[in-house]
Amino acid sequence: MPELRRDPIVDRWVIIAENRANRPGALVVAGHRDDSETSATGAACPFCPGNEAETPSEVFALRSDSAEPNSPGWRVRVVPNKYPALSRKPLAPNDQTTDVYRAPSETQLFSSAPAVGIHEVIIDTPRHVTTVAQLTNEELADSLAAICARLIALRRQPDLKHALVFKNIGRAAGATREHLHSQLMASHRVPPLVAEELRGAARFFEEQRQCVFCRMIDQERDEGERIVCESAAFIAICPYASRFPYEMWILPKQHASHFESIAADDLADLATLARSAIARIEPLSQPPAYNLVFHTSPFDSIAIEHYHWHMEIFPRLTIAAGFEWGSGCNVNPVSPEAAARALRAFSK
Amino acid sequence: MPELRRDPIVDRWVIIAENRANRPGALVVAGHRDDSETSATGAACPFCPGNEAETPSEVFALRSDSAEPNSPGWRVRVVPNKYPALSRKPLAPNDQTTDVYRAPSETQLFSSAPAVGIHEVIIDTPRHVTTVAQLTNEELADSLAAICARLIALRRQPDLKHALVFKNIGRAAGATREHLHSQLMASHRVPPLVAEELRGAARFFEEQRQCVFCRMIDQERDEGERIVCESAAFIAICPYASRFPYEMWILPKQHASHFESIAADDLADLATLARSAIARIEPLSQPPAYNLVFHTSPFDSIAIEHYHWHMEIFPRLTIAAGFEWGSGCNVNPVSPEAAARALRAFSK
Repeated sequence: MPELRRDPIVDRWVIIAENRANRPGALVVAGHRDDSETSATGAACPFCPGNEAETPSEVFALRSDSAEPNSPGWRVRVVPNKYPALSRKPLAPNDQTTDVYRAPSETQLFSSAPAVGIHEVIIDTPRHVTTVAQLTNEELADSLAAICARLIALRRQPDLKHALVFKNIGRAAGATREHLHSQLMASHRVPPLVAEELRGAARFFEEQRQCVFCRMIDQERDEGERIVCESAAFIAICPYASRFPYEMWILPKQHASHFESIAADDLADLATLARSAIARIEPLSQPPAYNLVFHTSPFDSIAIEHYHWHMEIFPRLTIAAGFEWGSGCNVNPVSPEAAARALRAFSK
Repeated sequence: MPELRRDPIVDRWVIIAENRANRPGALVVAGHRDDSETSATGAACPFCPGNEAETPSEVFALRSDSAEPNSPGWRVRVVPNKYPALSRKPLAPNDQTTDVYRAPSETQLFSSAPAVGIHEVIIDTPRHVTTVAQLTNEELADSLAAICARLIALRRQPDLKHALVFKNIGRAAGATREHLHSQLMASHRVPPLVAEELRGAARFFEEQRQCVFCRMIDQERDEGERIVCESAAFIAICPYASRFPYEMWILPKQHASHFESIAADDLADLATLARSAIARIEPLSQPPAYNLVFHTSPFDSIAIEHYHWHMEIFPRLTIAAGFEWGSGCNVNPVSPEAAARALRAFSK
């Protein structure tokens, strides 16, 4: 059972998930990183059609036909993660609570809790493609629709408060499985960084009676120099305080706090814009390496005025080193203005 | 001139340092990462003796003989970083202040300041070695003494408040230069993570009238299971809430807030213990890849009761991916108890 542990000095939680060390390619030990399974294709890829039995039983799928679950015929398929960093299982047979928090005390400095939650894999397409730009716009729209469907289903579960959806593309970005997929981690805790954004946005709203993201979009559109591309409903920018070279955020231009409330029309628009924007960063490294993260509001509200869902995309061209991990401050050698200029100029 | 930028939503600063994109191997663009300079050895290595003219002029050196500065004969050599992420130069010719902070306002969401400070390189040894375990105990003690000397010199400069000293070993840990060295970044700001540790430690001290690190050491010695090794004055542990597999901290057993106040006798003890502890993590990957960071107290005090200097060492066996960068929470697939057990068993 994965465990959440709190640092005794700073307010920092880590998930200790020893089961995840068993993933193919999870650890580079003595140079013998096992690449065999991660680059598995066709018959050997558990995410390819025909190999449905290789994954845990599906929890959701979009199917073009009336095929049975866990059989070919799907367009997007959602399965539990085989190596979950969050688990539904209680800590011990006689422990039925979902969050046994061992708090620090006068004599006990260390505190922990079971890392309870749901960890799913969204297989974007039956085709064995490895990057977002290789999807068609329709495939990406299907994948986004499946993510929405999962968020809508999971938010009904009273013990889940938030879900983080993300994609790791390429080994340098932490992918351990080549076939394109997203991951969803839902728990009763809001992830620290999302919680910090929610606090910062609430503070701004209290002072200025405006969503800070809406203000940021206004200012970016006034200045123009950090815009990558726009569609009717979405905008892609290199954020002012980019942590990574060519970091890019995609936001709805109209205020919207929850990704899962997106209109069906907007899904197609988002897919087209996101694919075009991401296609510009993929050539930055060979093979492409980036992370994509959805930041969206907690489940305990339907719509809030101060927070604005968005995607954050981090190309992995530099390595966070001693300074970054030791200081908590990133050094970015490419200004977002230069990054946006280069990405705007990119023609597909 | 590098620039500090504040994120408009969360309290997060980044350093935009476009000059650092020029470092050899700084960016992996389209797969053409330039490895030639970083693995330069002998005649081609700017950190090797005889090539002193290849670096900026030295600011400090330990020399066995009476050789001239910037000539061979040194044991440890400290030079300004050729690609500084912090700079002494003012932003513009007519701008003589050290911190022109452009604050956010009703109409201006974005704030920035020049990234003012000092960025130095401590060349640990004239020998072209690449890891800490390849140093002799005497060489490591010399290198630690040079770091102390620089901290003592820099703390006299009234506009500097703190220095972060760190080492990046191996390409996977962000090293762009093979010859073993440390870096020192001193500025008038305490790095966010150190500031957070100081706040957490102050809070603990206020409640419990004890240093939280001293308490932690007591508890680790009681429990024993996360101890890697000990010397007379120092202890190496895998911390309870380790972010990384085989993360290791080295702390003085007696309370000490400032690394630069270490006694000469303890320097030799620290060198021996640190080298033995680090030799245990180097074989975890081939080639070795880890970061080492000193966390020490700000310059504005001589000694404080609540903060305890220490080294944090992060082997780079996993890749922080979408979940980690998107949530602010690390997933660690190796428990610190298992890590310490394996490291204790390692015999050199």
